Amino acid sequence: MIDYWCELAWLGGPAAEAGVLISLQDDRILSIRPGCGAPPPGATVMPGLTLPGFANAHSHAFHRALRGRAQASTGSFWTWRDQMYAIAESLDPDTYHRLARATYAEMVRAGITAVGEFHYVHHQPGGRPYASPNAMGEALIAAAASAGIRLTLLDTCYLHGGLSAGGYSPRRGPQLRFGDDSSAQWAERTTQSTSSAMVRMGAAVHSVRAVDPDAIEVVAGVADENRWPVHVHLSEQIAENEQCLAALGATPTRILDDAGLISARLTAIHATHLAADDIGALGSSAASCCCCPTTERDLGDGIGPAPALAEAGSAICLGTDSHAVIDPFEECRALELDQRQVSHRRGVFDSHSLLAAGTSAGYDSIGWPEGGRLAAGGLADFITVGLDSVRMAGTGAATALPAAVFAATAADVRQVVIGGKVVVRDGAHVSIDVRAELHSSIAAVSTP
Amino acid sequence: MIDYWCELAWLGGPAAEAGVLISLQDDRILSIRPGCGAPPPGATVMPGLTLPGFANAHSHAFHRALRGRAQASTGSFWTWRDQMYAIAESLDPDTYHRLARATYAEMVRAGITAVGEFHYVHHQPGGRPYASPNAMGEALIAAAASAGIRLTLLDTCYLHGGLSAGGYSPRRGPQLRFGDDSSAQWAERTTQSTSSAMVRMGAAVHSVRAVDPDAIEVVAGVADENRWPVHVHLSEQIAENEQCLAALGATPTRILDDAGLISARLTAIHATHLAADDIGALGSSAASCCCCPTTERDLGDGIGPAPALAEAGSAICLGTDSHAVIDPFEECRALELDQRQVSHRRGVFDSHSLLAAGTSAGYDSIGWPEGGRLAAGGLADFITVGLDSVRMAGTGAATALPAAVFAATAADVRQVVIGGKVVVRDGAHVSIDVRAELHSSIAAVSTP
Repeated sequence: MIDYWCELAWLGGPAAEAGVLISLQDDRILSIRPGCGAPPPGATVMPGLTLPGFANAHSHAFHRALRGRAQASTGSFWTWRDQMYAIAESLDPDTYHRLARATYAEMVRAGITAVGEFHYVHHQPGGRPYASPNAMGEALIAAAASAGIRLTLLDTCYLHGGLSAGGYSPRRGPQLRFGDDSSAQWAERTTQSTSSAMVRMGAAVHSVRAVDPDAIEVVAGVADENRWPVHVHLSEQIAENEQCLAALGATPTRILDDAGLISARLTAIHATHLAADDIGALGSSAASCCCCPTTERDLGDGIGPAPALAEAGSAICLGTDSHAVIDPFEECRALELDQRQVSHRRGVFDSHSLLAAGTSAGYDSIGWPEGGRLAAGGLADFITVGLDSVRMAGTGAATALPAAVFAATAADVRQVVIGGKVVVRDGAHVSIDVRAELHSSIAAVSTP
Repeated sequence: MIDYWCELAWLGGPAAEAGVLISLQDDRILSIRPGCGAPPPGATVMPGLTLPGFANAHSHAFHRALRGRAQASTGSFWTWRDQMYAIAESLDPDTYHRLARATYAEMVRAGITAVGEFHYVHHQPGGRPYASPNAMGEALIAAAASAGIRLTLLDTCYLHGGLSAGGYSPRRGPQLRFGDDSSAQWAERTTQSTSSAMVRMGAAVHSVRAVDPDAIEVVAGVADENRWPVHVHLSEQIAENEQCLAALGATPTRILDDAGLISARLTAIHATHLAADDIGALGSSAASCCCCPTTERDLGDGIGPAPALAEAGSAICLGTDSHAVIDPFEECRALELDQRQVSHRRGVFDSHSLLAAGTSAGYDSIGWPEGGRLAAGGLADFITVGLDSVRMAGTGAATALPAAVFAATAADVRQVVIGGKVVVRDGAHVSIDVRAELHSSIAAVSTP
């Protein structure tokens, strides 16, 4: 048994508790005792604010190579996509593994203890499967294991190149390697992967642009049968809605609903441009919605209806998606701050709701409902935020939650424990030189 | 003569230059030589990206005590103002000095080398002047001097408590100490202050809510006579526009224009809710506009028309205002990212325009036009951003500007030189324990 004594810890309520003793047994929390004035003998002392680890519910690990590069240019989501495709085309299992390992290590360093990887770069350039058909997914699993992060591999069905009034167009160029020939082939390949203590499987529909309604039904069936979470990119761009309406005569949400994908198992990623009926369909089924605020800002997606979705019954979780930055505090506050700019009202979401979005709601979304909260029996995944930086100075017990949510950065994370193991100590990853590995792995895939 | 050899430096163009030798004489830049492959003997080597120092064109130093506290609550701009007033009421020259010194030191640590302090807490609680009528302004000047930051003290005229259809109401409660009895008294008091090598004076009109048109004319005259910059809070809230229209029959911008305040000497702070004519009036006079994006997000002000103002002829500069965070990189990118959310277009402002907003445009706005650029003859105020954090890893010469603007944080600033003197070395202030001074100075003014 290992004991951690936390100066302050958030146990899910509106304020932090002082003097919290967390006892671990293997990878689980055995007990939580608040109100322990002093650390008992042998306990590891955690100065600062201890939180459950953040779940990054939506990640494309390889997008990390675009940071700085994609921001050098102007244009739209669609011109950004060309840059992203160029990186996607250059990957092989080795470079994908190295880039993902460095990116996951940056996540861990930022306080993210579990990641949902929306994985679609499956096959060789041109589309021929690797000798081991899940070679790319295995590269991600190995990357997560060595970075020490908990992983849900959301294996993504991607069949078509696009959607217009004329119907689905074939995959082309870089898209060739994303897809399987059919939903049956996707199902066969994806169900070969197995879970382990730190890895679970999930399914994903890339979007209504890339997966037709019949295939969406297949994905929904596989997810139900295996009790997997299932994710889908939904209405991030107005153009997607227009294309879908023109081709299929309904909104993307309605298409998903008719195909049986909308359930409490589903997480809709972005959910930015929704009609009132769409919000009702997602909320009444208790589907989760994953906002990716820093990516949505970067891509100019627009500000989605998160408060209405929450009101309708959806849990809101968060993802760093394109990794323009990897900072779960920034995602939490951006969810609220963007809503303030629209509503001219402060406190649409309060601090502890924002922390819940970043932690428990994310763990639920990616299929680890026993994580993302500091509770007896739960996964021993937690982080400690220092209150000793100049940004955080002046923070006390009463203001620790709002100060962390509204002022901390990833650089304020001092300690990270995942599955009972210390992965970040004194702000450094215990086994990976994150900076050096990011540098070399990005250099290996970037065009100059 | 002192030489700094910069691995990369931004000299105002669209990309960073490699191997730049900056030679100083006293507090000035003597020469700039790009393309120096290796550091000459005796030069101080600056690894990373060197930028001109940031100008924080809009600061209320004492608001730093609200960080974390103000974010704990919900409500509106107007309920937030009550919290801010409670701190304002508690200040005296000593606590104001200590809080400002710690806040300015945090700014320097973040790469801010010059600050425009919009100063309105002038008199004793209740309104009686201190024995030395500028005691509070002198406290700020001393604070800036010991923090090593360049200061423009924008002494603010504040005569009335509010504006409604019935006209101006008297100052009340905490407002009593903000104001002078008349614009003449304001002018007499404010012109007693003198400039020095690191301090310049400026004027400010608090807002059309607090200063009537006749008094605005007086402030404009004092600014013109002394060749001071002049600042004004403008149309941050829709309610201000409504009150002004109801009471005076015109928009706040029109009121300022009719009173002779709008000129190239003026900086309009926020300028969020403007009519087309307002934008034309500001732009055609080459008035600057200061956006404070992190504060505007925090207060739910809304997203202003910065691109239209720039198009019309206004320079856009930036301020951290309420210090919800102090991070000039976050302000730069927020200016662009908020516009993307409105326009659904990327690159409304490009990286080097955003850096110019943060540096040269800010120096211009607060009356130091010889600063904010790396140029021979200019002020020796510059900073170096490390490219060695996990956030910045993967950045090279070609991507240094967009990576700094879109991914760096204040914590990435390694070195700061102001007026030729090193004020931050290896990420630490050379003479102030910033964290400890923030902690104690905030504790001294906060109600629990």
